[in-house]
Amino acid sequence: MQHNDLTQFRTDGTLYLSAPAAAELVRRKGLANCIAAMADNLRDDFKRWPEFDKTARVASHSKDGVIELMPVADAQRYSFKYVNGHPSNTAIGMSTVMAFGVLADVDTGAPLFLSELTLTTALRTAAMSAFAAKTLARPESRVMALIGNGAQSEFQALAFQHLVGITTLRLFDIDPQATAKLVANLQGSGLNITVCNSTAEAVCGADIVTTVTADKTMALILTPEMIEPGMHINAVGGDCPGKTELHGDILDAAKVFVEYEPQSRVEGEIQHKAEDFQVTELWEVLLGQKAGRDNAAQVTVFDSVGFALEDFSALRFMFAAANALGLGEHTALIPQLADPKNLFGMLSTPTPVAVPRRVATAA
Amino acid sequence: MQHNDLTQFRTDGTLYLSAPAAAELVRRKGLANCIAAMADNLRDDFKRWPEFDKTARVASHSKDGVIELMPVADAQRYSFKYVNGHPSNTAIGMSTVMAFGVLADVDTGAPLFLSELTLTTALRTAAMSAFAAKTLARPESRVMALIGNGAQSEFQALAFQHLVGITTLRLFDIDPQATAKLVANLQGSGLNITVCNSTAEAVCGADIVTTVTADKTMALILTPEMIEPGMHINAVGGDCPGKTELHGDILDAAKVFVEYEPQSRVEGEIQHKAEDFQVTELWEVLLGQKAGRDNAAQVTVFDSVGFALEDFSALRFMFAAANALGLGEHTALIPQLADPKNLFGMLSTPTPVAVPRRVATAA
Repeated sequence: MQHNDLTQFRTDGTLYLSAPAAAELVRRKGLANCIAAMADNLRDDFKRWPEFDKTARVASHSKDGVIELMPVADAQRYSFKYVNGHPSNTAIGMSTVMAFGVLADVDTGAPLFLSELTLTTALRTAAMSAFAAKTLARPESRVMALIGNGAQSEFQALAFQHLVGITTLRLFDIDPQATAKLVANLQGSGLNITVCNSTAEAVCGADIVTTVTADKTMALILTPEMIEPGMHINAVGGDCPGKTELHGDILDAAKVFVEYEPQSRVEGEIQHKAEDFQVTELWEVLLGQKAGRDNAAQVTVFDSVGFALEDFSALRFMFAAANALGLGEHTALIPQLADPKNLFGMLSTPTPVAVPRRVATAA
Repeated sequence: MQHNDLTQFRTDGTLYLSAPAAAELVRRKGLANCIAAMADNLRDDFKRWPEFDKTARVASHSKDGVIELMPVADAQRYSFKYVNGHPSNTAIGMSTVMAFGVLADVDTGAPLFLSELTLTTALRTAAMSAFAAKTLARPESRVMALIGNGAQSEFQALAFQHLVGITTLRLFDIDPQATAKLVANLQGSGLNITVCNSTAEAVCGADIVTTVTADKTMALILTPEMIEPGMHINAVGGDCPGKTELHGDILDAAKVFVEYEPQSRVEGEIQHKAEDFQVTELWEVLLGQKAGRDNAAQVTVFDSVGFALEDFSALRFMFAAANALGLGEHTALIPQLADPKNLFGMLSTPTPVAVPRRVATAA
């Protein structure tokens, strides 16, 4: 399979999956199936955690936002994601988060697969949240508060419905139009939905609380008096320096889990905590090296910031699915040279400018 | 202009320039013109050095090679390059170095331009080498030894001919076929060419020595007895940990210039030297803060490793030229959403899978 990927690259070039093509892929396979398959990849890859070459993401901060590169590799495959975060973009009709990425061959450096990752990131983030909640939340969890009803919220709702067994949602957003959009998009999902007037109202009685707000500030979305014994808090929105969602006392009273501690210390909810604040990396729980939830009354927090390995898992799924469905186009992102030492030769041979051609058949 | 770039992105998506399209661009504008324009951009950008957000590249090393990400940004534009280095690739008919990259808008994070950078890197590396030599070599330099006659060599030869005034080349490569290819490709260039039987023979009497070899080893391509007073050494091939070309004594006896000291300490010829080994960053010479060559007898070394800013300068040129010539295709690398908070909406509307369309007119 991996040998075939390189053969395909050498024959046809890089497989490119645009945003509309990724949406077509998700429509054909079904959203719940895609999220479930990504969650399977995430579990497999997190269990291989020590095999990966990991680095904290490389961030370039500016006045209104951040642009990040997130690389990771195992012995066979390398991936990176480009992703921005610009909360003010929505005011001019653009997305807060835009992303794309590449899956490459470690042995040769060949970029096998170039894909949109805006839609894909929403799926993988939801798959990661649900996968972590399956590991950490009480198994009988059925009610979820969903605070922040923006671009990520539908994916979170459906991932928790299909992977965790959530049946009831309690919604709040400071923007009522965002909530109305979420309610409309979830029609026909079978979820029981209550629109609430405040975060406190939404959180009251929930088994799981998901925060996925976008402001680039040190917000206090959740405060200690809202928290009930046994809750699992899925903190998605606090994911870069200066951007948090939880009151510090919540973290002190809970058991806190992270993806990759060196990155979470800088970007996560724990950025305000001392260096020796105790956290558990999720892979340690998966491999049985550390305990997850200790008892039914304990409050657990998944302080999620989004780690490069999650995009690796997602790209693996999208690449395989695009090949299987014959979606995407092959393109000469890299020159195809008769003699690799004769790069100059491509200038003297006026080949036609390539028009990417559609993949005709499944690989 | 920059405002127009964002408008174009929002209307048409990301401009994509494939490798064949980049070759067509270079054919239409002429190679010497492209290299000269890139050298102008390089000078402009190096003179703005303090304005850039700089980081050493992020490298992922494996048994046979390396994959790197090279980001850089000023207040308006962000760029990164993906580039590999796998010397064993040529044995299976693939290129040692393959690259692509993106130019993005800092205010919104929008990826404006996605381009091949394999061909472009060869041009920008040659432009950088020639630009540095114009700054550091003796003005009357006319003879260049070119050691390593692989994929980069033609570009180095023509850049030094057109920008520095080199009239005579002395060639050596351990692979005679590489040299034969270089000689064939330079026919009609007007350069006087001598094929030599050893590095020592090629270097003898040269004003400038360019080393652009590919082995990932600590090689001793140049040794002290080859070096003559007043030579300028353009050391291009020693550019990652464990990969060098010069005997250490050459560095001790010369004045050494680098692009970005923190990166060169890890990747350059100076990686074997103590932390306090004296080097001068090239931008300091350009801004008149430090001296370049002190006298005609001094040996100067440009210990070049390739810095992200050079790709920034090259991407600026290629983006502007592609727009001006109407080359490249616009593609939906990022979803184009009617409501940016409704990413989920793109799943319910089965839009046709986008076929990238050709840019019809110059911007």
